[in-house]
Amino acid sequence: MPTPCDTLLTCDVLMTQDMARTTINDAAIAITNGTITAVGPKTELQGSFTPASHLDLGPSLVMPGLINAHTHVSMTLLRGLADDLPLMDWLTKHIFPVEQKLTPELVRLGALLGCAEMLRTGTTCFCDMYLMEAAVAEAVHQSGIRARVGEVIFAFPSPAYPDLDGALDVARGLEERWESDTRIRTAVMPHAVYTTNPDLLQRSYALAEELDVPLHIHLAESTTETAQCLEQTGQRPVAYLQDLGLLGPRTLAAHCVDLTDDEISILADSGTCVSHCPESNMKLASGFCPAQKLLDAGAMMGIGTDGACSNNNLNMFTEMGTAALVQKVHRMDPTVLRAQTVLDMATLGGAASLHWPELGSIEAGKAADLIALDLTRPNMQPMYNPASHAVYATNGGEVRLTMVEGEVLYQDGSYTRLDYPALLNEIREAAHWVQKQL
Amino acid sequence: MPTPCDTLLTCDVLMTQDMARTTINDAAIAITNGTITAVGPKTELQGSFTPASHLDLGPSLVMPGLINAHTHVSMTLLRGLADDLPLMDWLTKHIFPVEQKLTPELVRLGALLGCAEMLRTGTTCFCDMYLMEAAVAEAVHQSGIRARVGEVIFAFPSPAYPDLDGALDVARGLEERWESDTRIRTAVMPHAVYTTNPDLLQRSYALAEELDVPLHIHLAESTTETAQCLEQTGQRPVAYLQDLGLLGPRTLAAHCVDLTDDEISILADSGTCVSHCPESNMKLASGFCPAQKLLDAGAMMGIGTDGACSNNNLNMFTEMGTAALVQKVHRMDPTVLRAQTVLDMATLGGAASLHWPELGSIEAGKAADLIALDLTRPNMQPMYNPASHAVYATNGGEVRLTMVEGEVLYQDGSYTRLDYPALLNEIREAAHWVQKQL
Repeated sequence: MPTPCDTLLTCDVLMTQDMARTTINDAAIAITNGTITAVGPKTELQGSFTPASHLDLGPSLVMPGLINAHTHVSMTLLRGLADDLPLMDWLTKHIFPVEQKLTPELVRLGALLGCAEMLRTGTTCFCDMYLMEAAVAEAVHQSGIRARVGEVIFAFPSPAYPDLDGALDVARGLEERWESDTRIRTAVMPHAVYTTNPDLLQRSYALAEELDVPLHIHLAESTTETAQCLEQTGQRPVAYLQDLGLLGPRTLAAHCVDLTDDEISILADSGTCVSHCPESNMKLASGFCPAQKLLDAGAMMGIGTDGACSNNNLNMFTEMGTAALVQKVHRMDPTVLRAQTVLDMATLGGAASLHWPELGSIEAGKAADLIALDLTRPNMQPMYNPASHAVYATNGGEVRLTMVEGEVLYQDGSYTRLDYPALLNEIREAAHWVQKQL
Repeated sequence: MPTPCDTLLTCDVLMTQDMARTTINDAAIAITNGTITAVGPKTELQGSFTPASHLDLGPSLVMPGLINAHTHVSMTLLRGLADDLPLMDWLTKHIFPVEQKLTPELVRLGALLGCAEMLRTGTTCFCDMYLMEAAVAEAVHQSGIRARVGEVIFAFPSPAYPDLDGALDVARGLEERWESDTRIRTAVMPHAVYTTNPDLLQRSYALAEELDVPLHIHLAESTTETAQCLEQTGQRPVAYLQDLGLLGPRTLAAHCVDLTDDEISILADSGTCVSHCPESNMKLASGFCPAQKLLDAGAMMGIGTDGACSNNNLNMFTEMGTAALVQKVHRMDPTVLRAQTVLDMATLGGAASLHWPELGSIEAGKAADLIALDLTRPNMQPMYNPASHAVYATNGGEVRLTMVEGEVLYQDGSYTRLDYPALLNEIREAAHWVQKQL
């Protein structure tokens, strides 16, 4: 006898990202209460389910939503404000002067724009660190996307708190506000070794343990960071964090560019997760993350875009392509970071790194977070290998549907929750404000 | 008194790429007989022209069409057939076995798909080298795009000719067939130093001189090529071509990765043009083209995607972004290959490299080859600097209109000349044929 379900989604090609990396032609997915209840051939599921609604996506490639493992989503507001500059000029003359004057409302607007961009380019979940993150969380909630959010913690005052006690209160308040929400989770997010101190780092980690949430931090982003850390602490960043007890499966470290082979082993052996942000590392000339070596050592890795100022987009499809390409030329070996490996990082790796195991694949019991790519686009034809296309052929513009927790949030140019034309007007006004600050 | 024109195009932002790199808000372009007759503020041109038709693109960024300075467009048919393999395995086990069985009809189909992809992602002109190029030229003609086309010349038989005399006859025939066409030009295209010989190279160059067309060749693509050339000729590739008299403004050399500083000077001083193909160089792990050094030495450079097998798309927007990013990390300097520089390479540099000076900018007297990007896309907002957005923020999916010689070829998902649904069906059948060959 047929089983009821909320939605029966059908499509020409389904890339499940399950253990066997199964691809199914003429596939169907049954969804109830935001959860996938069955996956299989269309003919099979059509006979066994009576759906309340039917979503036929025809010539589409359906796959898990991508997970952006490191960003500062509100920085979309400063997209393209300044580029091609030495790092310190860029930060001190262009980015910091504006950031110091940001308001929660501007942070919320930038976050909404970033959520709109990610939904439109196939990202269903992200990990975000910024100032006044409560405003980011509100935007996430409004857009319907998933995120793990955290207030950035510095050893100096920020617009959101006067001191460390205040910062930890903000982190705790964010967790209390969203602990019962299914789409928003939090983390404790000390900024980096060079903007914090041992007390701040250890108290941040203790709070992460107490709240049972991850700790997210920038780590080993550049040789400049290493030099500064050596000067201030006598240790390189990885050893410094290790001695403070901050490495382990609870910790998600962004960048991890300037690593020795020993440090690669330390990160992998401790279970520390890594957010690989290749485009940002390239644009800021930070260096090459040894991504294949980290994977070979057993590290859990996701892929992130970083903020829109050092990228300048939040497009995980182009980020996947760049991740694969830059590793090959860096290693002078076309066989490293294969398409399937990169796709795994952007789905299953992101889910594990963000401690969100119900995400990252399309299987019964997992969350219905998925996207559909238009297979009639010329760059998607012909298709001999869907994983290759997802990594090398796409540009993200092929996304025609984005679903989170069973809810369609974006389809064929329109958002279901956002008043997008109104948002664009608000963004234009905010951009005028930004230009006046410089 | 108002002047008549065929079309008056209006848009929110126009990036002209003229000498002063002028950007005009609320702009207009007057077009007659495929040529731009005036460019200026909308209010000004609306008063001075009486257009036969008005094309109001509203919230769009209009800019010159991009020029793909090196590709093998028919290889779209093999897109994603094999990836992540050592170069020789990839070529000998996957690409060559299929290419040896290609027919003119398959070459034409692959080229049509590639033209459709380029039109959709903002490319209006390309330089193409392949087997049975007459079939590519037919596809170019059908699609309405511009191209400089050439039969690839090897020192061994190809499906299109039995020997060198035959190959040169094909090149001559191609030029004779298209010499009066405004959108198709030809070049003589010996493949590379390692697949040819001195007689072939010198006779190719003599033919290029006789026909007064460029010579296009792969050059210094990898250290393997250099080693092979040293073994076969006792010289590195650049010196070898120089001694044979093949360097100079007539020659467009693709890749130019494995170069010494002296060779950079030789290429620049001789006026040899360079097609920089960063994504292909990365995917095949060929190495880093010293693009900024070549520019600093005064070389004329365009940007190319190479074929869809080593990329795996023909998207010049993502190629521009990668060109900028990979040079920064290679040089460990965020100030090299600035956004404006890269944009210049993909427009004016491409036009000069392809010996097509009427292309590359939007100015009175130039050809009306232009594109419009949708400024309402989230990744295009806010916009402080259009050149930065074109290089770093776009993915090519923002293109909503592509015009060549004053004719709209693509607009909002539809092609004006191509029966795209029928083409997709033919491509699917061709893909089945490809799979049977392996």
